[in-house]
Amino acid sequence: MSDLVLHVGNKNYSSWSMRPWVALTAAGIPFREVLLRFDFPAGNPEIRAVSPSGKVPLLRDGELDVWESLAIIEYAADLFPDAGLWPEGRRERAVARAISSEMATGFAALRGACPMNLRLEPMTLAVQPAVLANVARIETLWADCLASSGGPYLFGAFCAADAMYAPVVSRFHTYGLPVSDTSRAYMQAVMAHPAVVEWVDAGRAEPWIVAEDELPAIPKP
Amino acid sequence: MSDLVLHVGNKNYSSWSMRPWVALTAAGIPFREVLLRFDFPAGNPEIRAVSPSGKVPLLRDGELDVWESLAIIEYAADLFPDAGLWPEGRRERAVARAISSEMATGFAALRGACPMNLRLEPMTLAVQPAVLANVARIETLWADCLASSGGPYLFGAFCAADAMYAPVVSRFHTYGLPVSDTSRAYMQAVMAHPAVVEWVDAGRAEPWIVAEDELPAIPKP
Ligand SMILES: N[C@@H](CCC(=O)N[C@@H](CS)C(=O)NCC(=O)O)C(=O)O
Ligand SMILES: N[C@@H](CCC(=O)N[C@@H](CS)C(=O)NCC(=O)O)C(=O)O
Repeated sequence: MSDLVLHVGNKNYSSWSMRPWVALTAAGIPFREVLLRFDFPAGNPEIRAVSPSGKVPLLRDGELDVWESLAIIEYAADLFPDAGLWPEGRRERAVARAISSEMATGFAALRGACPMNLRLEPMTLAVQPAVLANVARIETLWADCLASSGGPYLFGAFCAADAMYAPVVSRFHTYGLPVSDTSRAYMQAVMAHPAVVEWVDAGRAEPWIVAEDELPAIPKP
Repeated sequence: MSDLVLHVGNKNYSSWSMRPWVALTAAGIPFREVLLRFDFPAGNPEIRAVSPSGKVPLLRDGELDVWESLAIIEYAADLFPDAGLWPEGRRERAVARAISSEMATGFAALRGACPMNLRLEPMTLAVQPAVLANVARIETLWADCLASSGGPYLFGAFCAADAMYAPVVSRFHTYGLPVSDTSRAYMQAVMAHPAVVEWVDAGRAEPWIVAEDELPAIPKP
């Protein structure tokens, strides 16, 4: 049996750390957690020492280091093929990976303007058109998946694709981005999932403030 | 048997299209190809009509659409588990996915300053420190993989991870970025691989010019 150790950043802010943590927790995969605090502006030398890419999340399994949120999820799925990290059907699995990769590689405008910050009081932020275009694309892909699966999660039961979008759900909620009823119902289902609740509660309880992530970018007209 | 159709962009410029095309071709996976030309600045409405994300590459398998280069590779690996898209060993597979995801999500400075352009005569471009930091990280990860595997490819035999870095090899070559002998030997092995040669030759033979990708960004001091 493997002895997995997941290294994560501050839970309040580290959206990439949240994704595999929530995915593995929801799938019932046992792991130990090590939290490496961000320490801006210099960066945390401990993170650079632990992780080949200098970033968290990082999963350690004995001598093996696996970095990148998606690669961590794939490795866990390789170790625990029956844990349901990905949907069972090959076609659903392909779409789940496509939207997860689209999240990992895209939506730069949204990520830049609306940093994840779990303890922020929900507000209504005016955002630029590029952010709204990201929101529209995300709403479309959620709606497509939910229509095919019937919900409540993107592929029926909660899977890694939902975990990949959990920080987006949090951003939409925090910054009051305008969404459809379908999206809102999905967001509520995600925010009520026990693994998400556990991460969010822990993040909110952290005392550390990271100035860089505290101020949403002022939207330009 | 599946009837795979891979939609790609201009071969001279579309680095993301190159990745799954080279990976599937090198693995001997049969597919048909449809080329959708970029048509800037408006964008090609055909690409938007075909692809959920509005981007190529896109793999069509009957009614199923799979987009995102990495997700296409994973789907093909799911269909053809013995084709060697990923390394056979679980630990090597995990690292191959980690570096592939690091490529898919990162190295923005390099990608911005040095657009892939296969038919450009090799030059020596002065680049900013952020680009050199990307180069350094890539050289480190190549060297780590090559030291573990013994080469000539990252995990011994050519696999999807090499395909993910093939456009980087081309950029390093075109823009004369300074690299170690280890990197240079690896680059030569990649540029000599039949699947890479086939793509590069086809790209160079294309008559279409995309102005946006023709001018490397002028380096700031
Ligand atoms: N593509 C990476 C992104 C990882 C990432 O950007 N992590 C951030 C925290 S959320 C980080 O480690 N930042 C610290 C730094 O860049 O020094 C993944 O999917 O894991
Ligand atoms: N993350 C995507 C990136 C795809 C991408 O950016 N494709 C470019 C061509 S290389 C594209 O379709 N651009 C056309 C457009 O944006 O209109 C992937 O891995 O497939």
